[in-house]
Amino acid sequence: MKIGILGGGQLARMLALSGYPLGLEFIILDPSKDAGATGLGKHLHGQYDDPALLAELAEEADVITYEFENVPAEVARFLAEHTQVYPAPNALCIAQDRLEEKNFFHQLNIPTADFATVNCLEDLQQAMTSITYPAILKSRRMGYDGKGQIVLKSSGQLAQAWDAMQGAPSIIESFVPFQREISIIAARRASGEIVFYPLSENIHQQGILRVSECCKNDALQHQAEDVVVRVLNALDYVGIIALELFDVNGKLFANEFAPRVHNSGHWTIEGAETSQFENHLRAILDLPLGSTKARGHTGMVNFIGGVASTERVLEIPHAHIHLYDKDPRKGRKVAHATIRSDDASQYSQSLQRLLKLAQSTDDS
Amino acid sequence: MKIGILGGGQLARMLALSGYPLGLEFIILDPSKDAGATGLGKHLHGQYDDPALLAELAEEADVITYEFENVPAEVARFLAEHTQVYPAPNALCIAQDRLEEKNFFHQLNIPTADFATVNCLEDLQQAMTSITYPAILKSRRMGYDGKGQIVLKSSGQLAQAWDAMQGAPSIIESFVPFQREISIIAARRASGEIVFYPLSENIHQQGILRVSECCKNDALQHQAEDVVVRVLNALDYVGIIALELFDVNGKLFANEFAPRVHNSGHWTIEGAETSQFENHLRAILDLPLGSTKARGHTGMVNFIGGVASTERVLEIPHAHIHLYDKDPRKGRKVAHATIRSDDASQYSQSLQRLLKLAQSTDDS
Repeated sequence: MKIGILGGGQLARMLALSGYPLGLEFIILDPSKDAGATGLGKHLHGQYDDPALLAELAEEADVITYEFENVPAEVARFLAEHTQVYPAPNALCIAQDRLEEKNFFHQLNIPTADFATVNCLEDLQQAMTSITYPAILKSRRMGYDGKGQIVLKSSGQLAQAWDAMQGAPSIIESFVPFQREISIIAARRASGEIVFYPLSENIHQQGILRVSECCKNDALQHQAEDVVVRVLNALDYVGIIALELFDVNGKLFANEFAPRVHNSGHWTIEGAETSQFENHLRAILDLPLGSTKARGHTGMVNFIGGVASTERVLEIPHAHIHLYDKDPRKGRKVAHATIRSDDASQYSQSLQRLLKLAQSTDDS
Repeated sequence: MKIGILGGGQLARMLALSGYPLGLEFIILDPSKDAGATGLGKHLHGQYDDPALLAELAEEADVITYEFENVPAEVARFLAEHTQVYPAPNALCIAQDRLEEKNFFHQLNIPTADFATVNCLEDLQQAMTSITYPAILKSRRMGYDGKGQIVLKSSGQLAQAWDAMQGAPSIIESFVPFQREISIIAARRASGEIVFYPLSENIHQQGILRVSECCKNDALQHQAEDVVVRVLNALDYVGIIALELFDVNGKLFANEFAPRVHNSGHWTIEGAETSQFENHLRAILDLPLGSTKARGHTGMVNFIGGVASTERVLEIPHAHIHLYDKDPRKGRKVAHATIRSDDASQYSQSLQRLLKLAQSTDDS
């Protein structure tokens, strides 16, 4: 079986590494010459909408998936006419537009921040008569790692903020006064079986994920499963999904979902019985899903813009490193490391040490 | 860093898969066009003693290792003159000759079966005046998976058995009346740090390894560590070593050692904190070695000559499959699967189910 992947970054790389033991081959479309996953399969080098490359991909791949949600929807639809594409294009279309995504949550009675469409300054001014400050103005499309977002603290900022969006269709959202940012990762296979990972608790810094920790036996696990299962079934979804949630006094508000493997699930490689990467492949091939049980205490730290030497990372007890083979650039995730231990205090000590090391080598 | 590997079969494949997260690249020399590891790096396609390919390998690789011990010793020595080769050629030379290996164990006061050199029928007849039946006649070189071995039950068989060896320099060994076949896998890095995995208990069928199970807290763990540490230090060894031992009423007899990652350690991928493959790479790069602690109850079953469908393997709770991308051939290992569970009885049930499935699909 040959799996096609749109995008050849670290997520594709980890998908491919987990797929070799399953006997899978890979064909990867990516515009970058030296994307980190391209050594692990056949590399189609070109743009995501290159008709000849898409035809080749559709011809060669038995199943196609993607590692990021900003694949043009028409590309996903074109491929879906020729071969199996999972998750299906409908999930992609919703996930790549913050307004459609919020509307979708509302249709499913899933709580979110207050929000309104913003297509002009008047829209923004009107919306802020009912939404309280602080609020966040976001472009509807192509935002990730905090890009395309402006925090609004008072009405004096509105004109300047709207100018900065350069006319991009946008959404204004109220700020959710959360205690925790969490995510739930789940997998659904075509024949309907669903599995849920334990919740991840996530800490962002400058809009970029810094730390994810696995929360075993979390009080909100069932509430989160109830939310994500509504999303999965509404979309007749196939593959791994990651749903980001805010915990506000024990009540969950949906932020956004990613129709793909997710950074907050990287701890599953060492920390779960079956990794999110392997379960994504099992799901899109309609194979039995693997156990999502956590193994011990486990969490992950991202290296951003630079990475410590492998020696220094591996000196930390219980540490495992994952380098992405990416050129360091400010604000770019270039590696992550995980800690896994049966002992809670050893885990905690090692995670703190890893976090300090990562912070000291950011943008190094 | 680029790692050169002599041999591109499943061991090289699993080494490479565990090396990508460490940011390593691979260059692999193998005579077969479609060896299972060759997609994971640059493939040098040709014989192990091809001077041009060896020069290219020595030029490109920062460190060279091998996945099997029958690499010609002069090849390893040639490479060692140009770059780092781990484990060093001295270990290779001893491991590829059963007589040298047994003499080496004796120099270290490590018990073995009784043995004698056999270069002619008279040698064999003379040896059998002091060695008791049953005994095993083995070619000194190139034996694996039970090949080149003849069991002798009485003196009437001697002439025919020696004929069958076709003049190959041989060794006669007494049969060791063992209760268990076990192995200990250990890693030593250049700067001297040594780690030991929990013992594996191994079951062979028709001379081929069928099942390995991790023995946590085994009564003979310390005795086995004491034996293997003498071997490691005597050889100033770097890398993973696997030492096969017989348990005779609680006393260990050495059978042979493999200067490489080993089939009886495949359970370490899911079942140990750090796999034997990752620790081999860490050792040859002189990086801190990872914890060898077992995670729960864990064991492995080989698929030989054929393999069940992935669906049927993954239906078994707690099962993970590892396909080698090899054409099935009678007696050839084409895949393995592991079971790992925190629950002893679930583990045992799944392992039995896996074993039955494997036996029913042998040579399929």
